[in-house]
Amino acid sequence: MKNFIEPRVLKGFRDFLPAQEIERRHLTEIIEKNFRSFGFVPIDTPALEYADILLGKMEGEINKQVYRFADNGGRDVALRFDLTVPFARFCAEHYSELVLPFKRYHIAKVWRGENTQRGRYREFTQCDADIVGTKSLATDAEIILLMRQTILALLQGGGITIKINHRGLFNRFLSELKLGEKSADVLRAVDKLAKTGEEAVMENLIDISGKAEAEKIMRWVKAKDLEELIALTGGPSDESNELGLLFKYFTDAGISDAGQNGSSLVLDPSITRGLDYYTGIVFETFLNEMPEIGSICSGGRYDNLAALYTKENLPGVGASIGLDRLIAALDALQEKQGKPANQTGFADCAILCSNEDDAGKYQALAKRFRDAGLAVTVFTEAKKPVQQYIQAEKQGIPWVLTIEETGLSLREIATRQDYKDLSAEEAIKTIKK
Amino acid sequence: MKNFIEPRVLKGFRDFLPAQEIERRHLTEIIEKNFRSFGFVPIDTPALEYADILLGKMEGEINKQVYRFADNGGRDVALRFDLTVPFARFCAEHYSELVLPFKRYHIAKVWRGENTQRGRYREFTQCDADIVGTKSLATDAEIILLMRQTILALLQGGGITIKINHRGLFNRFLSELKLGEKSADVLRAVDKLAKTGEEAVMENLIDISGKAEAEKIMRWVKAKDLEELIALTGGPSDESNELGLLFKYFTDAGISDAGQNGSSLVLDPSITRGLDYYTGIVFETFLNEMPEIGSICSGGRYDNLAALYTKENLPGVGASIGLDRLIAALDALQEKQGKPANQTGFADCAILCSNEDDAGKYQALAKRFRDAGLAVTVFTEAKKPVQQYIQAEKQGIPWVLTIEETGLSLREIATRQDYKDLSAEEAIKTIKK
Repeated sequence: MKNFIEPRVLKGFRDFLPAQEIERRHLTEIIEKNFRSFGFVPIDTPALEYADILLGKMEGEINKQVYRFADNGGRDVALRFDLTVPFARFCAEHYSELVLPFKRYHIAKVWRGENTQRGRYREFTQCDADIVGTKSLATDAEIILLMRQTILALLQGGGITIKINHRGLFNRFLSELKLGEKSADVLRAVDKLAKTGEEAVMENLIDISGKAEAEKIMRWVKAKDLEELIALTGGPSDESNELGLLFKYFTDAGISDAGQNGSSLVLDPSITRGLDYYTGIVFETFLNEMPEIGSICSGGRYDNLAALYTKENLPGVGASIGLDRLIAALDALQEKQGKPANQTGFADCAILCSNEDDAGKYQALAKRFRDAGLAVTVFTEAKKPVQQYIQAEKQGIPWVLTIEETGLSLREIATRQDYKDLSAEEAIKTIKK
Repeated sequence: MKNFIEPRVLKGFRDFLPAQEIERRHLTEIIEKNFRSFGFVPIDTPALEYADILLGKMEGEINKQVYRFADNGGRDVALRFDLTVPFARFCAEHYSELVLPFKRYHIAKVWRGENTQRGRYREFTQCDADIVGTKSLATDAEIILLMRQTILALLQGGGITIKINHRGLFNRFLSELKLGEKSADVLRAVDKLAKTGEEAVMENLIDISGKAEAEKIMRWVKAKDLEELIALTGGPSDESNELGLLFKYFTDAGISDAGQNGSSLVLDPSITRGLDYYTGIVFETFLNEMPEIGSICSGGRYDNLAALYTKENLPGVGASIGLDRLIAALDALQEKQGKPANQTGFADCAILCSNEDDAGKYQALAKRFRDAGLAVTVFTEAKKPVQQYIQAEKQGIPWVLTIEETGLSLREIATRQDYKDLSAEEAIKTIKK
């Protein structure tokens, strides 16, 4: 007996069958359409880069997760683990070719050797949008409005809450508590609030700063509005003014309840974002009907994107949608709402094969339908009609067309209804209805 | 002074700036649209797979080009070097979930550490379509018609020639010459005809088979029509019948000159395809105005796709468009024809920033235009209008909209013409015209 190589994929990697891939394409098309409608343009960068470029200032955790190896020429290379670092390198390398402010999007796969037990994948898709080359707070507002519009378009019903904070204001508060040096630890501790709960965060904060400071931090984190934050930081500051102006932008943009509880855009002082490079506005996005799945879109402002690679200063603001988590959320939502299963094909119609020698004629007929904007698959084996109907049903094709002596006949698969003696024009009309 | 990491990409890898990436997206959208119109569905597979899966029966040349390494868990892994091998593994692994015949497409990147001096890239995009699970010759015709329609849609004018042959008929001829065991060598030698010319191929053939046989092979390769091939192979055979039927399919499908010189579909006995796994119909596609660039789309029939991984028999037929060579060809053609430069953005219009505090109002206005189907970018820095016009021009944005006290005004960047005192509806109409 022959020995076969067992067909299998690596742990944390996935095949996408047509029903899944059609959904993925559909969602990325919506994302792209919305990104383009805001004037963002696409770029692409290599999957593989020099390791020193990608790992420049990364320590520990991420470094261990990177797929890094020596290529056939002995170069130290790695697969990209996000789209931000390659974008920073890209901006430095092509600085003279960019017209600033530069609004770009990038939808692509990234790779991390993460622990798959937490339900994470080792290959996943990120959808990033960034505006670089300006400190204007109006671009912070634009990124958030872009993501709000995009996620709402993806959801097709159902609400979201984008929780917004200002890292600079938080840092100012921590400086006043003389905790400036420990701010990274504090931010990381607070970042876990939604996941681990108040008690665990409080314990952690006590370890970092002692009980009295921990209580102050927790009061800040739980502040109800901007006024309270201003009071806790000892009066207005540049950062609190920015937060105020940001919400004014949202109101002016037509989001009448921005900042209020229940709005899609609210202030939440507990949002800190794990990543080090954010310096200003930060935000995370939650589905109202499924907050437990965590943020499906996050972002924020950074001071200087490409500092590792160039002396040019590139402030900017960006955000990223995690396609895989989004799909998990949408699938769970659909299950809740009892929505129909995924589309399994694109064909509007199949042409039945009565005689294999007529394959050319079937193609000629298919062309007329395709020219009319329909997607048509041609069956090529002269099995019994009922078998061909079953094939159409399994492949999600709603209509089957048969060439009869008296004209065309159409079967609607779902209802098993037949339409007889049609001209091509009539058949096209019937399918389009 | 600070030491920067030099921003650079690996040799053979490329960044795509917006003008290039917009073109790539545009072309892949055309390809996808045509593939879908024939009823093909998308799948996706991991970029990284177990090395034994990918390299199963590969020897020498390709093996050396593969990016292969041990991952952090010590697994022997490799980046995919084509889309066919992963598709074979996919079909074996998901055999019970597929409805046969299965028509799938896959547009994705692949990686090979090729010698870049020949103008090859180490990361490139393939666009594959295959029909598996049937021996029907009608599917061979369908793949060729699909590729013909797709390439013509990509070209937007200009002709192509798809050169078609039958590997089985060639092998039958070689068997009759008692050269069956040397057929792989002969096929490889003949495959170089277009590249190296007749003399070099002849020399090579003489080495393989001696002068007398070499002359016979060359006569076969240069045969003018199917009748001549039939005569040279000692009469009709299953394979010659298939070739005849294939061209009948094309004629029936409406390509009235199929098979004749100057048609887009012709018989060419010199086409052999380098790859081992083809067993039946094979074809290559050339641009009439630029044959020297080589085949931009090739394919053929194989007996058994997934024999390495499963006992299930999976005959099929497939084809692949090399996106990078296609783009090189299109760019060269456009240069010849003096066509305009690539599109550099999607925005139909920019909203001028007169006052940074009004950013929210600009977004509200932008939303009205976006809701009307226009793509709008909002400028966020209150520079002089002329500077903002220049920015629009550099970013390929044709219109700039300004909010004036008396209404809206529109500047058409190309003509420097202004349209004053417009309502939003009038401005939308003007841009759409």
